[in-house]
Amino acid sequence: MTDRNIHVQPESGLAVEDQEVEIVERKGIGHPDSICDGVAESVSRRLATAYIDRVGKVLHYNTDETQLVAGTAAPAYGGGEVLEPIYLLIVGRATKTYEGTRIPAERLALEAAREYLDEQFPHLDIGSDIIVDVQLGEGSGDLQTVFGEEAAVPMANDTSYGVGHAPLSETEQIVYNTERRLTGEYAAENPVVGEDVKVMGKREGDHIDVTVAVAMVDEHVADLSAYKDAVANVRAYVADLATEYTDREVSVHVNTADDYDEESIYLTTTGTSAEQGDDGSVGRGNRANGLITPNRPMSMEATSGKNPVNHIGKIYNLLSTSIAESVVDEVDGIRQLQVRLLSQIGSPIDDPHVADAMLVTEDGVAVGDIEDEVRAAVDEELADVTDITRQVIEGETATF
Amino acid sequence: MTDRNIHVQPESGLAVEDQEVEIVERKGIGHPDSICDGVAESVSRRLATAYIDRVGKVLHYNTDETQLVAGTAAPAYGGGEVLEPIYLLIVGRATKTYEGTRIPAERLALEAAREYLDEQFPHLDIGSDIIVDVQLGEGSGDLQTVFGEEAAVPMANDTSYGVGHAPLSETEQIVYNTERRLTGEYAAENPVVGEDVKVMGKREGDHIDVTVAVAMVDEHVADLSAYKDAVANVRAYVADLATEYTDREVSVHVNTADDYDEESIYLTTTGTSAEQGDDGSVGRGNRANGLITPNRPMSMEATSGKNPVNHIGKIYNLLSTSIAESVVDEVDGIRQLQVRLLSQIGSPIDDPHVADAMLVTEDGVAVGDIEDEVRAAVDEELADVTDITRQVIEGETATF
Amino acid sequence: MTDRNIHVQPESGLAVEDQEVEIVERKGIGHPDSICDGVAESVSRRLATAYIDRVGKVLHYNTDETQLVAGTAAPAYGGGEVLEPIYLLIVGRATKTYEGTRIPAERLALEAAREYLDEQFPHLDIGSDIIVDVQLGEGSGDLQTVFGEEAAVPMANDTSYGVGHAPLSETEQIVYNTERRLTGEYAAENPVVGEDVKVMGKREGDHIDVTVAVAMVDEHVADLSAYKDAVANVRAYVADLATEYTDREVSVHVNTADDYDEESIYLTTTGTSAEQGDDGSVGRGNRANGLITPNRPMSMEATSGKNPVNHIGKIYNLLSTSIAESVVDEVDGIRQLQVRLLSQIGSPIDDPHVADAMLVTEDGVAVGDIEDEVRAAVDEELADVTDITRQVIEGETATF
Amino acid sequence: MTDRNIHVQPESGLAVEDQEVEIVERKGIGHPDSICDGVAESVSRRLATAYIDRVGKVLHYNTDETQLVAGTAAPAYGGGEVLEPIYLLIVGRATKTYEGTRIPAERLALEAAREYLDEQFPHLDIGSDIIVDVQLGEGSGDLQTVFGEEAAVPMANDTSYGVGHAPLSETEQIVYNTERRLTGEYAAENPVVGEDVKVMGKREGDHIDVTVAVAMVDEHVADLSAYKDAVANVRAYVADLATEYTDREVSVHVNTADDYDEESIYLTTTGTSAEQGDDGSVGRGNRANGLITPNRPMSMEATSGKNPVNHIGKIYNLLSTSIAESVVDEVDGIRQLQVRLLSQIGSPIDDPHVADAMLVTEDGVAVGDIEDEVRAAVDEELADVTDITRQVIEGETATF
Repeated sequence: MTDRNIHVQPESGLAVEDQEVEIVERKGIGHPDSICDGVAESVSRRLATAYIDRVGKVLHYNTDETQLVAGTAAPAYGGGEVLEPIYLLIVGRATKTYEGTRIPAERLALEAAREYLDEQFPHLDIGSDIIVDVQLGEGSGDLQTVFGEEAAVPMANDTSYGVGHAPLSETEQIVYNTERRLTGEYAAENPVVGEDVKVMGKREGDHIDVTVAVAMVDEHVADLSAYKDAVANVRAYVADLATEYTDREVSVHVNTADDYDEESIYLTTTGTSAEQGDDGSVGRGNRANGLITPNRPMSMEATSGKNPVNHIGKIYNLLSTSIAESVVDEVDGIRQLQVRLLSQIGSPIDDPHVADAMLVTEDGVAVGDIEDEVRAAVDEELADVTDITRQVIEGETATF
Repeated sequence: MTDRNIHVQPESGLAVEDQEVEIVERKGIGHPDSICDGVAESVSRRLATAYIDRVGKVLHYNTDETQLVAGTAAPAYGGGEVLEPIYLLIVGRATKTYEGTRIPAERLALEAAREYLDEQFPHLDIGSDIIVDVQLGEGSGDLQTVFGEEAAVPMANDTSYGVGHAPLSETEQIVYNTERRLTGEYAAENPVVGEDVKVMGKREGDHIDVTVAVAMVDEHVADLSAYKDAVANVRAYVADLATEYTDREVSVHVNTADDYDEESIYLTTTGTSAEQGDDGSVGRGNRANGLITPNRPMSMEATSGKNPVNHIGKIYNLLSTSIAESVVDEVDGIRQLQVRLLSQIGSPIDDPHVADAMLVTEDGVAVGDIEDEVRAAVDEELADVTDITRQVIEGETATF
Repeated sequence: MTDRNIHVQPESGLAVEDQEVEIVERKGIGHPDSICDGVAESVSRRLATAYIDRVGKVLHYNTDETQLVAGTAAPAYGGGEVLEPIYLLIVGRATKTYEGTRIPAERLALEAAREYLDEQFPHLDIGSDIIVDVQLGEGSGDLQTVFGEEAAVPMANDTSYGVGHAPLSETEQIVYNTERRLTGEYAAENPVVGEDVKVMGKREGDHIDVTVAVAMVDEHVADLSAYKDAVANVRAYVADLATEYTDREVSVHVNTADDYDEESIYLTTTGTSAEQGDDGSVGRGNRANGLITPNRPMSMEATSGKNPVNHIGKIYNLLSTSIAESVVDEVDGIRQLQVRLLSQIGSPIDDPHVADAMLVTEDGVAVGDIEDEVRAAVDEELADVTDITRQVIEGETATF
Repeated sequence: MTDRNIHVQPESGLAVEDQEVEIVERKGIGHPDSICDGVAESVSRRLATAYIDRVGKVLHYNTDETQLVAGTAAPAYGGGEVLEPIYLLIVGRATKTYEGTRIPAERLALEAAREYLDEQFPHLDIGSDIIVDVQLGEGSGDLQTVFGEEAAVPMANDTSYGVGHAPLSETEQIVYNTERRLTGEYAAENPVVGEDVKVMGKREGDHIDVTVAVAMVDEHVADLSAYKDAVANVRAYVADLATEYTDREVSVHVNTADDYDEESIYLTTTGTSAEQGDDGSVGRGNRANGLITPNRPMSMEATSGKNPVNHIGKIYNLLSTSIAESVVDEVDGIRQLQVRLLSQIGSPIDDPHVADAMLVTEDGVAVGDIEDEVRAAVDEELADVTDITRQVIEGETATF
């Protein structure tokens, strides 16, 4: 056992599953805020990799400020068109010269963004439906960080905290998987479903309302009747999906803002509302675990685009979630676990100022019964902190 | 009594003041994120006012996406200079034509931004230290909202929620007032203090650490010794100030990242870190009540720049805080009150789907004793919902 | 014979071939100014075509203001890379709505630019080596012009003039063809030659100096020795080529600014100096005939990007050259012909205020001998003025 | 006498005053192209001065690529407003670091632009009617030039030429002074006259047509009748002014595109057409002598914004005009003098490859009579070449 400052204690309030009202939201991959998150994180991974390849370690950078300015489009049954392009400005800091080696940070950022968009947004014509611009300044020169070269654990350079939990509540599972599966397996079979899928879950007592807004792709919608079919199909799919995660009663609502009489429907050319009037930016949407959960403590920190070597907020948000998941996996008897990590400037990041584990145990299990086990599991995960950095750089960990 | 759906119930967990660890943060008015918030909200107010003046009602707009790209500066004892300007891009949607009347939304946005910056940032030379650019598209034309002309309460156009609390904990009061008073009364006497003041409060048990980062203005710093004096003076001022809000033990830390040996200190030419490497954007910093409070539920919604007539997230965040404050004022016996409002699409915004009041009462007071009083007070505040809109437009309510 | 106001008269000065010093320049297709010309003209053609396809006639537009901001690159033997992208801003005016039809002018502009760049610049990675941005405002709404729908000849909307000549002098032929053939047939066989080829010809008496600056493509240059070979090969090719156009003595100079000792050579990654420090814009380079000829009158008007239906300067510059070429073809005995067309506001463009033909005849031919023939030929060409518009839209006529 | 290569010879053609048709144009200071020229040259002067002040010599820069994107305005009798701002992008290269000294090139550029615009355009609200942006890259580092520190004459770094003439023809004088005096003394008394005044002179035989387009300032125009008065007053003023420069018959036309029946008139809010639909860029308007003169040889080189120490095209265009003026002043008997200077790479710029003086003498004077005098005067002016650089930096010489 190490001497890490790990507190294990009972959660003072109700488990989220026991609270009367629970609200959960997920902005899908094609939501304007998520587009920014995705681009920012792709750019970050590309830069980290390039630094390791070229100078053997990750240098100072942060690319967590992408801004999307919406375009204008004229969707139409059978296929419309973008009128004025979306404008995406990648903003951040990057080291461009290191001991004589020049790193093409801006070009790499553009490449990463383009590849990400190309891969994720098949209906978006990169370069004409969307303009990608970049402004990467150089930060303070002395902030050079070391990763890859040596095994050293970095020092925290800020007072920051991260918070995560496990397991997901039923509502959380439904919300998360609705988006993931709609834009994944379902869209693969049903190309009418665009990437901009927003899911809001609201549980009151034992009734869950799942409200889904799906940007339908006009190319695959012949007319209003086809649109209605598409909506009905999504509704049925989600209703079915929900039963995998809950026995509670679930109502599914799809594209509720539609007005069929006015033929005002959620039709898009590109699969995202960014084509018409919805701006976006990094860190305004999902938290690091992919959800917005007002019933739980959340960090305001944007995770996407941050440097995974030394940005303590990013690391601790991802790590606290990862720890919570591992502990719940390893230790029996936990109904709900929340992990909070608080950094200490100047100390190694594997030695947080405080690591809090707040437990709700299953019936018949006391916190005291599993406290040591939990502490040991947290301790083990902390010891492996730099693995989070590696996972992020290699794209194994989602950040939004 | 109305039939509004108001729940009054005991808080299930510990009062924040009773929790072992409390973290509170405030990004001052000159922090890059706050600069964006401030500009976005100024633009919003200007547009709302212009719409009322020109067409008698507030039309559709949202200007909640300002992005700041940091500049480069060379601060120096006695006065340095900006090398490369800060770039500020105001992004959003605004109605530009209404029944034949053209509204100069982009020009008004620039004027509002310029006036705000001029007023708040005396060390920043608008137009050469900072470039202000604007891209306001037109949103969906049918989203015209009515305010000012008629007394009607708008309908909620989204499922959204807001959350607020009162009173502020001691740590919250210290953090909030440290920034407000340092950049206010103290800076008026001590121009060495720039507008970028960031305050982090951490309470563990009965010990509060207040960590303040103050961008010192180089013009008023003759040399390292003068800088050290400035730091010491701020420390003394904050230590003194803290005693007004708490009897707990307080340690104050100022500009802890300084390294005097390397003469690496927090010196700026303009009073904000935006001059050198710190980007910013709207909605990434303080919540609507001016604080970041991970111990409490928070909304992810950006408040600044949103349309105060129909943006339900903005209205409910401001309103829930305002309700909590009023109720605590009016009703005796409350230690902590959290108010949460959840909207219902298509219903008037003064009639939320749910209004939750979570109470921690003072010793000797039961929730049941004051439940009716609280419900009545919440009800009354809800009835007056449109006053929040008026206050926002007239600049009486801060949003960050 | 019509009553067009056509003056045929002897040239008052010496034929250019007889002047002591003659200077001729051509900026190749990859020169930053020419990149702008080429993009502007592609955009213009795309818009004109789209207007005809969608509303049956060409509407008001002008896209003659593209600005290129140079990038930064690190060329290297065997292949280097772009560090910071080139930025290209397409500026202009375009009609975006016409009788209910929306025309996606900005998207079309981006598409046209991208396709043009893709086709012409194989070493340039569009989207990461170069960012293409666009700002097309709407001009005055009433300037809607008619082309395609009816056979009417448009009215001149400005007082403007155009000037052209034929045949090309020997020096002009050499300069023009050196660039055309180097970046054409020669580059096809020798990919080391980039698109940015600048040719300056200077004739003093009977000696012609041809100075060629060729952006060599680093991917095809193994080392300094290979570079020297590439330069020597170009020199030999041009020297040989020149003999096809002249019997005068010709000296060829290639990449004279190179300094082999310092290994300061003209190596590029993308084939254009726009990658490193050379900005560009429309209308700053070649005139409508592809040359800069200070020994002859020139128009300052930018031709590329202008609306070919109603922009009288563009039409008259192209037409005067075309007339001069046709007349020289059809009428024997002409050594040099300069044609100048001056428009008259409010008159049909086939009826210029003045059409001047200034002749230098061959020995033994008097101007009077061929005056009527010339006048008739000019008259005939003027009658066919709208064919220039068609040629431009269909891309048959170069504009730079 | 030096051994400079100065040729003095008779002009082979007719003097411009004797040609049948003469065309002359001047774009006034408020024309969008001229705004760009003016800003570019202001920026250039500011940078040159800053380099001298900070490092004792002028370093490498070129700021000759400003691009203006027009705005949108709603002028109205008594005073209208700008709807969407003009966007001005200053583009170029500048040395930002020299032997450890950092030069704030971008900030200085913005300051210079703002001050220039403030001073010249009283009706334009800088920062809200117009956005000024800047992108100054760094060029090739080795191009550092020396001026101020030592007396050395720089070497030509390019093959370039300049051309100038004196005296101005009558039509040239009228065109030039019409703009200068309308926007000068006349506008001082008659604020209705904006800065955007475009003058076209056309002489056929002994009749001169002066066509003036004046952007009237709406604030000073109460109604259509007031507008008509303003037009009539300008016409009378110009007609009167013209008699100072010629005995020929002069017709004056003002704002000929107006259509009073449609109330389509040339009314602006800011005094420049840049507010509505007219884009602009550097080097597209007046040549270095302030005129566009298709009857005379012209250089395509943009003069404004170029580095006056080492940009041989700028220096030779200004110098050839200055030489022509001085020689005509000093030597009697000259009707027309054209001077052309051709540089030689690697030679001092006071020793051009060729200096050509083409003379038309007055009746009774032979070229041979004054040839030596002319050569001596040219020689003397060349010896003083660096004075042109000084004049440009100190703002004594106009460049457009």
